[in-house]
Amino acid sequence: MKNVHPGKAVVLISGGLDSATTLAQATDAGYECYALSFDYGQKNRIELESAKQLALDFAVKAHRVVHLGIGQLGGSALTDPSLAVPDFDAAQTGVPLTYVPARNTIFLSVGIGWAEILEAQNLFIGVTSQDYSGYPDCREDYIKSLETMANLATKAGREGRTLHIRTPLLHLKKSETILQGTRLGVDYGKTVTCYSPDERGRACNQCDSCNYRRKGFEEAGIPDPTPYLRAANQ
Amino acid sequence: MKNVHPGKAVVLISGGLDSATTLAQATDAGYECYALSFDYGQKNRIELESAKQLALDFAVKAHRVVHLGIGQLGGSALTDPSLAVPDFDAAQTGVPLTYVPARNTIFLSVGIGWAEILEAQNLFIGVTSQDYSGYPDCREDYIKSLETMANLATKAGREGRTLHIRTPLLHLKKSETILQGTRLGVDYGKTVTCYSPDERGRACNQCDSCNYRRKGFEEAGIPDPTPYLRAANQ
Repeated sequence: MKNVHPGKAVVLISGGLDSATTLAQATDAGYECYALSFDYGQKNRIELESAKQLALDFAVKAHRVVHLGIGQLGGSALTDPSLAVPDFDAAQTGVPLTYVPARNTIFLSVGIGWAEILEAQNLFIGVTSQDYSGYPDCREDYIKSLETMANLATKAGREGRTLHIRTPLLHLKKSETILQGTRLGVDYGKTVTCYSPDERGRACNQCDSCNYRRKGFEEAGIPDPTPYLRAANQ
Repeated sequence: MKNVHPGKAVVLISGGLDSATTLAQATDAGYECYALSFDYGQKNRIELESAKQLALDFAVKAHRVVHLGIGQLGGSALTDPSLAVPDFDAAQTGVPLTYVPARNTIFLSVGIGWAEILEAQNLFIGVTSQDYSGYPDCREDYIKSLETMANLATKAGREGRTLHIRTPLLHLKKSETILQGTRLGVDYGKTVTCYSPDERGRACNQCDSCNYRRKGFEEAGIPDPTPYLRAANQ
């Protein structure tokens, strides 16, 4: 059952597979979508082009790319030029080197602010705890806690116009996400998931992110449209 | 009793009276201080010069000014060129036009990230709920909730290296803050509190912020070193 007037929603989009699917889901559910992306010094800058294309494809009401100078604080292989993005290692446990400290919290905080300005009561983020990748800020207890905080942080929340953090992918496997997105018309060939793609957006096929994505397509039984630079190691 | 080795602390400094006092308190308590400021499109840009001077005066380990492009989202008289900063109105209730949606949450989120990178377990912010100014993100329940969230958001928090959000001014009146800071050597003549100072940092003496500050000095019985552009309205 589709709710035709669920209201406004801010949707965080990176240009990757998960957030593209999330935007498709929010659009399909009838939300009036406002897309938000971040230029935070990520090496994978081509993903912002992908985000802009997605915003057009799904005819969002507005798309903002907010600059955040957090790369200068260092600490992650995704932003720090002195750290190389590691190849996939199935035996790796714990939080990976690609973890950007507090990234989702920073992104969601800006989303909370924009939602209040727009009087939107929904904030979508495509986090998933299912394909475990070791990121602490992709788990359900974190999201619940952030929602509680958000409603104390804002004028809107204090006055009872509750903000809901929506995470439709939280309990989906990558293959399930791909099946849903395909049904909703996402062109995954336009999304960039790789941590270090080339300047044309072609994927390395070696990093964690490429691995989860490739296996997702295999499991879903859907042809993988990703432009790869080379064959996988395994 | 002074704890001589309380560890590292990230201290948010705006260049205003409250955060200058907070930095003085953290320094006096023996913390190894890392100062963090934000260039977020505020009209009061002169405060960043004041922040840089404070960082030097208190010999912090490092000072970072992080650019945040949140002004483009609009919604506040402090960043939106189309909205004038209102004069002080003692009869005003509710959240004022100078409220920047989710500002403290965004600032603290970046602070959480830097604290994790530095392996600091303390994050200071000079919020106060005492001189009530209508900001929802300056209250104790909000700060507690944010602390809970922060420790679920990060690798450090998940592994038991708890981050503490320190708010030494939370229950202090402005006059008490001024008395403490004066005792600790803060030169308040160098701090900028006004919402719309001139290019030399001289204060308007009309806005909410100027009013609370001026009355604080009066109540504390300490000569007010603020360079004012004109006499107060009342």
